[in-house]
Amino acid sequence: MQKLSTILVLNGPNLNFLGNREKNIYGSKSLEDINEKLTVLAHQYDCDINFFQSNYEGVLIDKIQDARNKYSGIIINAGAYTHTSIALLDALRIFSKPVIEVHMSNIYSREWFRRNSFISYIAEGSVCGFGFLSYEIALKTIIKMV
Amino acid sequence: MQKLSTILVLNGPNLNFLGNREKNIYGSKSLEDINEKLTVLAHQYDCDINFFQSNYEGVLIDKIQDARNKYSGIIINAGAYTHTSIALLDALRIFSKPVIEVHMSNIYSREWFRRNSFISYIAEGSVCGFGFLSYEIALKTIIKMV
Amino acid sequence: MQKLSTILVLNGPNLNFLGNREKNIYGSKSLEDINEKLTVLAHQYDCDINFFQSNYEGVLIDKIQDARNKYSGIIINAGAYTHTSIALLDALRIFSKPVIEVHMSNIYSREWFRRNSFISYIAEGSVCGFGFLSYEIALKTIIKMV
Amino acid sequence: MQKLSTILVLNGPNLNFLGNREKNIYGSKSLEDINEKLTVLAHQYDCDINFFQSNYEGVLIDKIQDARNKYSGIIINAGAYTHTSIALLDALRIFSKPVIEVHMSNIYSREWFRRNSFISYIAEGSVCGFGFLSYEIALKTIIKMV
Amino acid sequence: MQKLSTILVLNGPNLNFLGNREKNIYGSKSLEDINEKLTVLAHQYDCDINFFQSNYEGVLIDKIQDARNKYSGIIINAGAYTHTSIALLDALRIFSKPVIEVHMSNIYSREWFRRNSFISYIAEGSVCGFGFLSYEIALKTIIKMV
Amino acid sequence: MQKLSTILVLNGPNLNFLGNREKNIYGSKSLEDINEKLTVLAHQYDCDINFFQSNYEGVLIDKIQDARNKYSGIIINAGAYTHTSIALLDALRIFSKPVIEVHMSNIYSREWFRRNSFISYIAEGSVCGFGFLSYEIALKTIIKMV
Amino acid sequence: MQKLSTILVLNGPNLNFLGNREKNIYGSKSLEDINEKLTVLAHQYDCDINFFQSNYEGVLIDKIQDARNKYSGIIINAGAYTHTSIALLDALRIFSKPVIEVHMSNIYSREWFRRNSFISYIAEGSVCGFGFLSYEIALKTIIKMV
Amino acid sequence: MQKLSTILVLNGPNLNFLGNREKNIYGSKSLEDINEKLTVLAHQYDCDINFFQSNYEGVLIDKIQDARNKYSGIIINAGAYTHTSIALLDALRIFSKPVIEVHMSNIYSREWFRRNSFISYIAEGSVCGFGFLSYEIALKTIIKMV
Amino acid sequence: MQKLSTILVLNGPNLNFLGNREKNIYGSKSLEDINEKLTVLAHQYDCDINFFQSNYEGVLIDKIQDARNKYSGIIINAGAYTHTSIALLDALRIFSKPVIEVHMSNIYSREWFRRNSFISYIAEGSVCGFGFLSYEIALKTIIKMV
Amino acid sequence: MQKLSTILVLNGPNLNFLGNREKNIYGSKSLEDINEKLTVLAHQYDCDINFFQSNYEGVLIDKIQDARNKYSGIIINAGAYTHTSIALLDALRIFSKPVIEVHMSNIYSREWFRRNSFISYIAEGSVCGFGFLSYEIALKTIIKMV
Amino acid sequence: MQKLSTILVLNGPNLNFLGNREKNIYGSKSLEDINEKLTVLAHQYDCDINFFQSNYEGVLIDKIQDARNKYSGIIINAGAYTHTSIALLDALRIFSKPVIEVHMSNIYSREWFRRNSFISYIAEGSVCGFGFLSYEIALKTIIKMV
Amino acid sequence: MQKLSTILVLNGPNLNFLGNREKNIYGSKSLEDINEKLTVLAHQYDCDINFFQSNYEGVLIDKIQDARNKYSGIIINAGAYTHTSIALLDALRIFSKPVIEVHMSNIYSREWFRRNSFISYIAEGSVCGFGFLSYEIALKTIIKMV
Repeated sequence: MQKLSTILVLNGPNLNFLGNREKNIYGSKSLEDINEKLTVLAHQYDCDINFFQSNYEGVLIDKIQDARNKYSGIIINAGAYTHTSIALLDALRIFSKPVIEVHMSNIYSREWFRRNSFISYIAEGSVCGFGFLSYEIALKTIIKMV
Repeated sequence: MQKLSTILVLNGPNLNFLGNREKNIYGSKSLEDINEKLTVLAHQYDCDINFFQSNYEGVLIDKIQDARNKYSGIIINAGAYTHTSIALLDALRIFSKPVIEVHMSNIYSREWFRRNSFISYIAEGSVCGFGFLSYEIALKTIIKMV
Repeated sequence: MQKLSTILVLNGPNLNFLGNREKNIYGSKSLEDINEKLTVLAHQYDCDINFFQSNYEGVLIDKIQDARNKYSGIIINAGAYTHTSIALLDALRIFSKPVIEVHMSNIYSREWFRRNSFISYIAEGSVCGFGFLSYEIALKTIIKMV
Repeated sequence: MQKLSTILVLNGPNLNFLGNREKNIYGSKSLEDINEKLTVLAHQYDCDINFFQSNYEGVLIDKIQDARNKYSGIIINAGAYTHTSIALLDALRIFSKPVIEVHMSNIYSREWFRRNSFISYIAEGSVCGFGFLSYEIALKTIIKMV
Repeated sequence: MQKLSTILVLNGPNLNFLGNREKNIYGSKSLEDINEKLTVLAHQYDCDINFFQSNYEGVLIDKIQDARNKYSGIIINAGAYTHTSIALLDALRIFSKPVIEVHMSNIYSREWFRRNSFISYIAEGSVCGFGFLSYEIALKTIIKMV
Repeated sequence: MQKLSTILVLNGPNLNFLGNREKNIYGSKSLEDINEKLTVLAHQYDCDINFFQSNYEGVLIDKIQDARNKYSGIIINAGAYTHTSIALLDALRIFSKPVIEVHMSNIYSREWFRRNSFISYIAEGSVCGFGFLSYEIALKTIIKMV
Repeated sequence: MQKLSTILVLNGPNLNFLGNREKNIYGSKSLEDINEKLTVLAHQYDCDINFFQSNYEGVLIDKIQDARNKYSGIIINAGAYTHTSIALLDALRIFSKPVIEVHMSNIYSREWFRRNSFISYIAEGSVCGFGFLSYEIALKTIIKMV
Repeated sequence: MQKLSTILVLNGPNLNFLGNREKNIYGSKSLEDINEKLTVLAHQYDCDINFFQSNYEGVLIDKIQDARNKYSGIIINAGAYTHTSIALLDALRIFSKPVIEVHMSNIYSREWFRRNSFISYIAEGSVCGFGFLSYEIALKTIIKMV
Repeated sequence: MQKLSTILVLNGPNLNFLGNREKNIYGSKSLEDINEKLTVLAHQYDCDINFFQSNYEGVLIDKIQDARNKYSGIIINAGAYTHTSIALLDALRIFSKPVIEVHMSNIYSREWFRRNSFISYIAEGSVCGFGFLSYEIALKTIIKMV
Repeated sequence: MQKLSTILVLNGPNLNFLGNREKNIYGSKSLEDINEKLTVLAHQYDCDINFFQSNYEGVLIDKIQDARNKYSGIIINAGAYTHTSIALLDALRIFSKPVIEVHMSNIYSREWFRRNSFISYIAEGSVCGFGFLSYEIALKTIIKMV
Repeated sequence: MQKLSTILVLNGPNLNFLGNREKNIYGSKSLEDINEKLTVLAHQYDCDINFFQSNYEGVLIDKIQDARNKYSGIIINAGAYTHTSIALLDALRIFSKPVIEVHMSNIYSREWFRRNSFISYIAEGSVCGFGFLSYEIALKTIIKMV
Repeated sequence: MQKLSTILVLNGPNLNFLGNREKNIYGSKSLEDINEKLTVLAHQYDCDINFFQSNYEGVLIDKIQDARNKYSGIIINAGAYTHTSIALLDALRIFSKPVIEVHMSNIYSREWFRRNSFISYIAEGSVCGFGFLSYEIALKTIIKMV
């Protein structure tokens, strides 16, 4: 039986430290915990899912370019690069299939330098502020879209 | 058997015209269609749900104040008041139970005067850009939270 | 014989006090005087005309939404809401027939906070600075357009 | 014996929730408590006093317009509309008798979006930061002025 | 019989190309067509009218200075100089008789660098956005004023 | 019998010229007149009061530092230093007992460079715009607080 | 044999002083030297070329308007008008054939007031910073384009 | 006997209307009156003087370029071009002999758009606010410098 | 025989170091040299002159207040306080007789933080950029004015 | 026979996708196509050429540092890093031989966040907007320079 | 015997070129020279020290994350990433032990784009402007802190 | 034996209250404690040291001017004047020997109005954020420099 779709979940800088980092903001689940839950969820929808985290802007761009023919949608939490990387925006423009922006915290209510998102210029939509749930929501949503 | 929670879905100015308005941005579903779908969904989760739309900033504030002892959470799409109403922010602060911000379009990628959200200062999180799905996502999420 | 068109003249906050208010800026004609003159003028052109004033942003939005199937054009002096109401802009976008913006004074030469008009983003055109004549001009113009 | 003057005390959005709301900022007195104290105080000065609260910008404007021939002075705490409502400023300009601006908290030391007051362009003066005392001070002061 | 008044219609840079230029914005009438229509209209009101167009800021200033003793009013579409010429503003201040600002398009809804008008600091009023009708409206209005 | 409290009234630059200076803004009472009235008022409340004026930022800081163990509250009209002196703000932070900011005129409706108050970051509250009454109001208020 | 194309090289204010002016920035070649070299180069490509320099914004606009039916492309170094002239931008929009922007120095690394180019909104491309070579490059490029 | 120096006095737009224009700001002397006085003064110092006024930015640039080998100093009141013309600044840079900026009024205390002077980037110094005396002062000063 | 007038020459912070400080900007004359020259010049015009320099903002304010009944005009070089002292502006407003602003260098062409002058809001006029000559010019000019 | 020079052509993030990406902006040539054409061209001028593309800011910096002793000039299209990377600017400053900035599109007429180029602070010059021709132009130009 | 602490010295982009780069700003010592001196110094304090330099933002983040359990403090000169990298700030927040920011030059007195430091939001303190001494100072200081 | 150098340690407003003031920010050491420690340290290096604190901007300027021939270096913590005093900057420019800026807290991570340092334009370097250690570090560093 054919899988319906394949989703790539991309995480940017410092998100490999989830669960170890400012728990009052980010909760105590690790990225592995989240990925595991997402895998279970994806399989319920007969959907393939892959995960990738990097602290490198360039590696994330490589991955997005490479995703072009392999994935039907991207869920991205670009971490701090959300606010500074026009290059990620350009890479996601090339991807040209659905992109959903995810944040665990509500970036729009934090420091002034976190109130701009370059990702938002290309993303279909965004889910912010629900901790690890943000990812689950994004996954369920992108599956409906692709 | 006791209902788990009661949710209020608030819609601000011009959202009563969904389905009739700039369909390329907002889709063709009317607000009634959306509310109907949300009702079905809420009942699946044994959750009560009520709907309210107004073009009046003051009426929305009244409703939020009134919601304080009646609802366990608010889903709000404040429409254009998102960007101009500090009074709504204050009302939601008084509410002090979970609030989720919803937008059908990705407000952060539109005109400059839509890039600020006063609601974001109080909301737990936000869901933007998925058309009527934004509401469904918000509903499922708030049910998990309350 | 069929009327050519029906025009709605909308006045925003504090315009019900024309003639009683800062006469050096707004002249001594009351809103009723102006409406009377506009009625005469409209009938000369076989055109129906209705008037509505409100101090409520929400009531003005309701009226604009309601105008959609009843009027062929709107003349609007949104008063102070001109500068602060994105919600009125959205309502006028839904209207999708000709809209003319009117001001009695030249708003662009007054306080800094009156130099932005959200109405100007949707209006066909604007007539500012000619006192009650601004309305007459707008009426004659919209009749030619509709 | 003739009363010396009649004062209107206007309260804007969310002030009906005083005593229930962010007590560390606004104290534990309700608006009714404050009004009661103000009534006693006014009567000591042989002065009539009326109270009005609304969450509606338009209702507040109506009330100010209506106050023109009935009151000799207005004490106004416009709440969040302080920062966003040019229409209230215009209405108060029409009133043309003494206006005193009141705030329970020191608005100039809070969030950036609370540092502008449109009311300050027309008010004789302002009293900020003394909790419910702000009202008492304003009352005693306006009685001296009218 | 004495003429009632003499009006000067001034057009700034690139307006000699009307009818040949971005027709979706400016319509297909040439400046000569417009002038012809205005002449007919002026004569109906027993009013003399003259026309002048130049691409030179300096020539426009000369003309305005020269208009001082010859004309009873000026209708000006300063084109792009609207946004950049303080010198034109100064010249119109010297003129000291009625000035009406005209634009064919709604300048306030275009590029950011067209949202400032130095002419608006001196003009009695402005008429924007009605194509060649803007001129007719301005003419009828200025005749009433002078 | 023990005095209830001791208040210091601090006046900044040019306030020694009250009564001689822009009377339309500041009234015709001299600083001595005001101090005299305040002394009478203070004594009615069994409260000690001292006055100090200086044109020197440094002297004002010295005085505030020195006030630490001698006064139970400070009323300060920092004049033009209100808008430029972070050092006064720091000194008042050290004082750590109630501080009330006073202005005779409504500083928030004057030139742009008077719209920022560094004092407001530390003051309990402020009283602006009531001429010499501003001081009386502040005195009565601080007596209640200390 | 038919010429392939005819190019107009337009130079703005003070460029007639090349070779006499700030040689460290602009080099020692005069505008005549440059034009001579460009003529030779154009003839190698069987292309006609004409040159025009003016210190007048209006004359440059006239020339651009006049170029419409005579030239197949324009190379323009608008000098200081680059940064201030919206009127030149409008004229070039009318031209509607290829336009290349040229600067001898790298304007984007100089004073703040040289960092905006209105010409860049219409030009196909720009060549900056190579001294007289900028013109040669622009000429070769426009020949390929027309 | 050899003249010591030759000075050019340049006046920009609308200065030919001195004496007829906003007399409260500019006084009642005409430009001819001023020039006459300056001529007498120059001759007292054995200095040649010439005058030139134009409403054209381009003509003023031509004149400055032409002045290069003929004059030993320039006194310039660029009128409104002071605030908008980078091209005049560039022309004066080419001149490379002393330049003095003159204004009859104190431009730095007027409208916001008059607070920037491009001329000030090249002028040796400036004399502002003394009416026609500004010219006399500038003349005496430049004679000492050249 | 009666003296015509008495002038106060005020110098602000660091001007006591003239001649020892950044000579390329300020020249090699000391303040004493300048004062000596000014004294000679004043006496030629039968005018009394006094000099005062201080590094203290407060002392300068004291001096200006004190000058009110003793001097017919003030020449002020407020040094760095030019850019930061609103208190000096207020003091000079109290003085209410002619004030001339002087700077040895052209402050408007230096660092960004020197481009604002609070003194310019009250000064009759200013003389900038001519080194010690700036003082001589100011003296001759103020003598004509008082 | 000795080669005249060796040029490095550096391309930044997402430029490896030329030909596959927003063809209306970037054309249909791939980076390989461009490089091939540039190689042919270089050889015609007896010039060695090497190519390097990376999505990594750090790799580009490494390459520039490494280029110091190997190349006589760099042609760089830094893609999105143009607007955000001060580190690339620093690396190019170390290189200290000619650098030419290249863009296929006219970056100065696109989104606001593309209007700043850090590269422009160090580049000799720039060539923007001519698609793949931008590279050819840059190559011919740098060969003349080195 | 147990070492007291282990320090990581991190250097960002282009700092591997110290000694070869703009020597007037950065001095002639190479990074190796500096590291050698720091090693000697560290050993005098019985402290272990390691060095790491990278031009990659991502590598620096990896290193900081990895440092968490290995080092008791970090000395970081983030080079140009100081001004642009929010991701480094986030990584250092995770580290949660003492961080000292180092710069060889005084970044706050250089180009505008170097006046913001994201590192300063997390660093205990900073040492800027002393060339290689900045590192020595930082080392001695961090040893006292850890 | 000759002392190597003499250092002046200058402290600005409110620093005489160290140890009594916001201890969480500034620690519990008094200024006298710090000075004592610095004296011991200076003597270890055979260096003379003097201390001076003032709340007066003018007194600090006097002291800096006076230091010119007496001291070989200045360590300055200008307190709040750091952010507002251009006059101190000018005084330090006159000093022309090494100056080191010191802050006990990290000023760049506090309120917005503390993020600008005028001292940084002249200081060799700065040491911020290490409490009283900042002074010790600065002393050791300046001794190496002078």
